[in-house]
Amino acid sequence: MSEILKGIWRYQQVSRVELVDQIGLTSGTITNLTHELIQLGILRENEAISGNVGRRRVMLGFDPRFYRIIGLDIGRSSFEIVVMDLNGTILQSIERDMNGLQGPDAYFEVITPLVAGVKSDIEAAGYKILGLGAGVPGPIDYDSGTLLAPPNFPGWSNYPLQKMLEDQFGLVTLIDDDARTSAMAERWYGLGKNVNNLVSVTLGMGIGGGVVTEGKIVRGTNGLCGQVGHMTIVLDGKMCGCGNRGCWETVGSIPGILGRWSGGSTIEELQGAIKRREPEALRCLEDTLGFMEAALVNIQNLYDPELILLGGRLYPLLSDYLVQVKPRVQSRLYAFAKDRLRIEPSTFGNSQSAVGAAALLFGFLLAEPVRLLSLREK
Amino acid sequence: MSEILKGIWRYQQVSRVELVDQIGLTSGTITNLTHELIQLGILRENEAISGNVGRRRVMLGFDPRFYRIIGLDIGRSSFEIVVMDLNGTILQSIERDMNGLQGPDAYFEVITPLVAGVKSDIEAAGYKILGLGAGVPGPIDYDSGTLLAPPNFPGWSNYPLQKMLEDQFGLVTLIDDDARTSAMAERWYGLGKNVNNLVSVTLGMGIGGGVVTEGKIVRGTNGLCGQVGHMTIVLDGKMCGCGNRGCWETVGSIPGILGRWSGGSTIEELQGAIKRREPEALRCLEDTLGFMEAALVNIQNLYDPELILLGGRLYPLLSDYLVQVKPRVQSRLYAFAKDRLRIEPSTFGNSQSAVGAAALLFGFLLAEPVRLLSLREK
Repeated sequence: MSEILKGIWRYQQVSRVELVDQIGLTSGTITNLTHELIQLGILRENEAISGNVGRRRVMLGFDPRFYRIIGLDIGRSSFEIVVMDLNGTILQSIERDMNGLQGPDAYFEVITPLVAGVKSDIEAAGYKILGLGAGVPGPIDYDSGTLLAPPNFPGWSNYPLQKMLEDQFGLVTLIDDDARTSAMAERWYGLGKNVNNLVSVTLGMGIGGGVVTEGKIVRGTNGLCGQVGHMTIVLDGKMCGCGNRGCWETVGSIPGILGRWSGGSTIEELQGAIKRREPEALRCLEDTLGFMEAALVNIQNLYDPELILLGGRLYPLLSDYLVQVKPRVQSRLYAFAKDRLRIEPSTFGNSQSAVGAAALLFGFLLAEPVRLLSLREK
Repeated sequence: MSEILKGIWRYQQVSRVELVDQIGLTSGTITNLTHELIQLGILRENEAISGNVGRRRVMLGFDPRFYRIIGLDIGRSSFEIVVMDLNGTILQSIERDMNGLQGPDAYFEVITPLVAGVKSDIEAAGYKILGLGAGVPGPIDYDSGTLLAPPNFPGWSNYPLQKMLEDQFGLVTLIDDDARTSAMAERWYGLGKNVNNLVSVTLGMGIGGGVVTEGKIVRGTNGLCGQVGHMTIVLDGKMCGCGNRGCWETVGSIPGILGRWSGGSTIEELQGAIKRREPEALRCLEDTLGFMEAALVNIQNLYDPELILLGGRLYPLLSDYLVQVKPRVQSRLYAFAKDRLRIEPSTFGNSQSAVGAAALLFGFLLAEPVRLLSLREK
């Protein structure tokens, strides 16, 4: 079943004949399995008029009419819920500013009523919920679903988030590092559908990275693979919350940038000062772009992806200057590789991590549909 | 067959009953396939006395009596040939100093007679040669088997090495980046047998890296994955041959280190000066270790391996000081991860890359035994 779902995911609409060709199962088996998936409300048949002869063909696609997935992004300064269908369409999105709130108790006072409300609305409208995904600042202990020691996120060390969410809402729950959920969003619903190797970089209150290698998210031994924010960019630089010195995050995240500018306390104020061409603000920007340039060269030389995606709350500031950074990065790469480098904005803007959190469940559905549906019933 | 060979590789000696358990094929199929592999000279039966009851069991292992693999390391200042059997035993090793020689023509004047001699000796003694592997400074275009633009290796750009070796010696030939062959040696014959995620770092005239993720060597989009020598360590540092600035290689390779010391022109001289506690030499050493410390922290935070292996011609110098570097690296990692970090010397010393070049063929044998043997016959 997994192969069938993956085939349909890749091409959106596929006929049974095409599935037989792609997967190599017999047409009888394909017919039986797709029948079962249709009964389960995962797939549906659509009629398509093909070519100019106008022949009707029955195409299979995901069925958006029964299941919903809830995705949460629990961030350092914001919280978001998205509701998605099986086609990857965002049906609803709610955001909350979390500045000033600290630790799980304060967060859950906001999160609990919002998620409970969304959940009961979905069920009242007759839909079933496949599960709930959450992106949070990492690192995470995946065996226990516990946050470890996320830098700049006080109060959350050792918090058993997966279990708390599960107990609270009674849904199948998956959690992951928010940089990795952002990569998941791209992998399943965005540009990663057609790209086997990508690195997704999230620039905000922290800097995170999610690495997809040969189509698969890579977590590493301790769940730390892709911690691009914690590569040393300034030798003997400032101490970072992670234990290292001179991390990219210490100079390239929102607090890192604002720490090098005395003219104000928000990125919007800095943007204003840059527009007014104030020398200190311009120097701060220039340094920020320089750090980013070195970091992107390192990402390219260490992971060698086809595509680097940039997103997060800092992206709107940086996007104006990417035009300058890109050729500077390219000029520092191996000559034969530089023209192949693609740097793109991530597909889902501020919703990237929440969409990716929903994608965790979508990935689970594609890998083990029967197991996910049976977990739901418990 | 591939599954059987991998099972035997992992445990060295395995009974047919254990194979049935591990692989899940029927015992009839296992018997047929192992019989075929024994006929082919790949496997052999050994009798083992098991436990204290003294029961005799027939164990399967690789057969070292028929096939040989030749591994070459074509380096910037040295050349090596090793001959190995299917158990991973190094039967012969020949090294040549290549200092002063430049470009393929000068190299092949040395390489051709040596390899031809080794080949005819093997054949004269009645053995068959499974194939030839070669490690070279990368990057490589894998489709065509051509060297691209290896930094500090003049004359080799766009050289079709794979084809030249194949034509010259008439053997099945595989080539790879020497840092990646070093990782291969570890993966197939060394510490990587029991470790799924590792990074092998080769420090010498250049600095290279080979990355194994979930048991597989990762090459990336352009064959550049793992170019740890080309991460920026000194922001706005010196230009590097790769196009980037301030690469670890510019300050941490043999030329990089000697470029920061005015007292001599070899690493051995530097070692002497360090022993005499000459201030400039001590400062050069201290800086070298500082760069290495930052680089190892970056490797850990970006790839999150279980194991980092250090090798190459610089290793004998650095090994005396690793005792200092290791706790300094650990103190800069996430608290929960630092005690799990292992940094070890690579298993095969100076022969690492040549052994790994032979391992390319061993990996091919394990993945596609029938195809490799039929290519041999052509």
